[in-house]
Amino acid sequence: MQKPTLPKGTRDFGPEQMSKRLFIFNTIRETFNRFGFQPLETPSMENLSTLTGKYGDEGDQLLFKILNSGDFAAIVTELDLAAGSKKLTAKIAEKGLRYDLTVPFARYVVMNRNALTMPFKRYQMQPVWRADRPQKGRYREFYQCDADVVGTDSLVCEAEIVLMIHEVFRNLNIPDFTVKINNRKILAGIAEVIGAPGQEGTLSVAIDKLDKIGKEKVLNELTERGFSAETATNLEPLFSFHTLGVGQVLEPLKTWLSASDVAQKGIAELEETLLLVSQYGLSDACVEIDPTLARGLSYYTGAIFEVKANGVSIGSVSGGGRYDNLTGAFGMPGLSGVGISFGVDRIYDVMEELNLFPVSAGQGTKVLIVPFDAEARLVALPLLRQLRTANLAAEMYPDLAKVKKMLDYANAKAIPYVVLIGSEEVQTGLVSIKNMITGEQQKATLEELLQRLS
Amino acid sequence: MQKPTLPKGTRDFGPEQMSKRLFIFNTIRETFNRFGFQPLETPSMENLSTLTGKYGDEGDQLLFKILNSGDFAAIVTELDLAAGSKKLTAKIAEKGLRYDLTVPFARYVVMNRNALTMPFKRYQMQPVWRADRPQKGRYREFYQCDADVVGTDSLVCEAEIVLMIHEVFRNLNIPDFTVKINNRKILAGIAEVIGAPGQEGTLSVAIDKLDKIGKEKVLNELTERGFSAETATNLEPLFSFHTLGVGQVLEPLKTWLSASDVAQKGIAELEETLLLVSQYGLSDACVEIDPTLARGLSYYTGAIFEVKANGVSIGSVSGGGRYDNLTGAFGMPGLSGVGISFGVDRIYDVMEELNLFPVSAGQGTKVLIVPFDAEARLVALPLLRQLRTANLAAEMYPDLAKVKKMLDYANAKAIPYVVLIGSEEVQTGLVSIKNMITGEQQKATLEELLQRLS
Repeated sequence: MQKPTLPKGTRDFGPEQMSKRLFIFNTIRETFNRFGFQPLETPSMENLSTLTGKYGDEGDQLLFKILNSGDFAAIVTELDLAAGSKKLTAKIAEKGLRYDLTVPFARYVVMNRNALTMPFKRYQMQPVWRADRPQKGRYREFYQCDADVVGTDSLVCEAEIVLMIHEVFRNLNIPDFTVKINNRKILAGIAEVIGAPGQEGTLSVAIDKLDKIGKEKVLNELTERGFSAETATNLEPLFSFHTLGVGQVLEPLKTWLSASDVAQKGIAELEETLLLVSQYGLSDACVEIDPTLARGLSYYTGAIFEVKANGVSIGSVSGGGRYDNLTGAFGMPGLSGVGISFGVDRIYDVMEELNLFPVSAGQGTKVLIVPFDAEARLVALPLLRQLRTANLAAEMYPDLAKVKKMLDYANAKAIPYVVLIGSEEVQTGLVSIKNMITGEQQKATLEELLQRLS
Repeated sequence: MQKPTLPKGTRDFGPEQMSKRLFIFNTIRETFNRFGFQPLETPSMENLSTLTGKYGDEGDQLLFKILNSGDFAAIVTELDLAAGSKKLTAKIAEKGLRYDLTVPFARYVVMNRNALTMPFKRYQMQPVWRADRPQKGRYREFYQCDADVVGTDSLVCEAEIVLMIHEVFRNLNIPDFTVKINNRKILAGIAEVIGAPGQEGTLSVAIDKLDKIGKEKVLNELTERGFSAETATNLEPLFSFHTLGVGQVLEPLKTWLSASDVAQKGIAELEETLLLVSQYGLSDACVEIDPTLARGLSYYTGAIFEVKANGVSIGSVSGGGRYDNLTGAFGMPGLSGVGISFGVDRIYDVMEELNLFPVSAGQGTKVLIVPFDAEARLVALPLLRQLRTANLAAEMYPDLAKVKKMLDYANAKAIPYVVLIGSEEVQTGLVSIKNMITGEQQKATLEELLQRLS
């Protein structure tokens, strides 16, 4: 018999990992709720007509497609077969797995446009699937946690995103992080000012790599992509802003981009956003203005956000921005929104590497009851009920086994307390409680036991 | 442009439905935790070699299969095409979507057999997919919530399942439900005693329908399936047990089945389970012994459970049982376990029909701050921070809009309190708080506000 395996790029999450993952999910969900975002879930499958063409050619290739049910081969001809995989797919698969949470959200908004109250604030925490080549830190199934507000262009929403990022990371117990912020309009202004108006897309792709490949290679890439030597030279001032603090960067940026109206608008939006954040009273904001931040996504039209955890070499753990045309592809143009996405897998890696998970995040059962024989169960069972009534996670070892085996079970499950019940305990009504971390053991009445464990 | 649609048999869950569904999920999860079950998640996709052959021929047909990535058509020949859909599928799809949580759990146990501490108690709450014909109450994507303990045949586990069912439904606020219990060994004994030994499978399928089709049709079905008229007549006593209470049914059952050792063992197991439940001290157990309960699943070998909500015509909302060979199909025979599965969709329907959701289950934002102008935001923003610091879900209307529009927003989102801030409020430092349910409006200091809302 063949040993069972997992499909490549997928993972099981056992009890310890799951407890930690649930800590992350719950923290993000509670924060989303506290900021007035409401939950939404969409189906794992979407019609391929909904998904195709939304993620570029590469994205289309990475969609997982689901074979139609029934006798699909009956309608396939030899001609279809000869036409290649793409044509054949269209004939035998009409559904695909969710690739991100944004397109299903847009589809939901369009289908429910008349019932939704705008501005609509929703969050969504669900897995997505991509037929990417699996590698370290990249999986074929992973969770996204997105919060978006659509139907308003108020900068209050940008400020709220910055605030919510801070709450999420502080509630997660990650103290040292940086929220990088930029504005697509500033990038457009830079393109104008250096003499390459309208080229901010190409410009963004190149300067987005500044941290990774350095200034020289960025300039090389630009000239390779058709930027003149002069426009590249004109970009020089940008690199000096990169090292300035949040208070210092805006004034030189304003001066450099004084000829560009769109840049001035972008700078003003950024200033207003930060003003609102400070009026809210966020102490110790971990914000950095980074005019090179682009995040590659062409659909951003205003603010761009990215979050990095400091002290670890793990990429961005969160990102988002303002877009003006979420639902255009579904025939509902001009809907503006701003959103943020948290990457649970990377946040998990950061917290694991920096040892930031609270002890409680991994904790399951608080107390194991160990009856020495069948008679001891007469004491153990009502005690079990009382512990659970006091909202304590409690279990009784189900078999009549050697005490050592039962204690090993407690240790393996990291259960911190064990209550031992033998014939003496049955007679006296006292129980023995053992702290599995210190090894200390004491007699206690039921009342003392409940008090101690609560 | 075509309007986007959902694949048939799938659903979006908007904010109100999601809040209620999360109430159900959280209640079940907390109860599982309190009973010492640990979370597990497996990938949505499994290799088809893991899934195929585990659910019968019909089940194999209902598996959603995922098209291989890359140029799959290149390896398909005209011969493959001529061989039909089944053969073709094997060549172009190697993965499928999870059909239930049991097979992935078995696969996980086998793959991690050396690392797991037995008995292993896990719960799993994830969607499953079936290419069933959609109809009212039957979907192609739906959640299962399973808890199982494997690696022990202790009847304490059966008792814990009964207890956990009671806690789940009581915590969900569903007061009137019935936990039906039977034992596969009793069904085997009945088959023996009526003169059809080993035929308990066929027998079960027929008598499982007693509630739906009545006694005469059950007997007809049995004779159609090859049971003699005599064996059918011998079944007569069974139908009289059906109406007896939990205290009365066991004695006549024992007498009727006195010639069957296996039946006596089944009865003894059932008695021991109920004894453990009563020793635990469950008051008002809602248990019914039903010797006709079969649940169709041939892999049950001991206890069988089924839960129905009373007062609604919705099928069983939960079911489970004892099995002795969970992992046999993966080359690890003889692992005994017992489990229970809660059907979230049906539980939702029950609670909706009986109006059992607590008000808090649908509640999102608790308070909306409504600033009349930009200046009012200077008061609104720090207030927003303070409300959230007090763990209240709070939001500020992001645009400067007409007051009526902002109040409409609060009503649409069912936000119970609105704080109004105009120029008077800015000057006096007092705010106006409006109860959106009663319409009542009062002035309050910040302290009074926090006190009132907490």
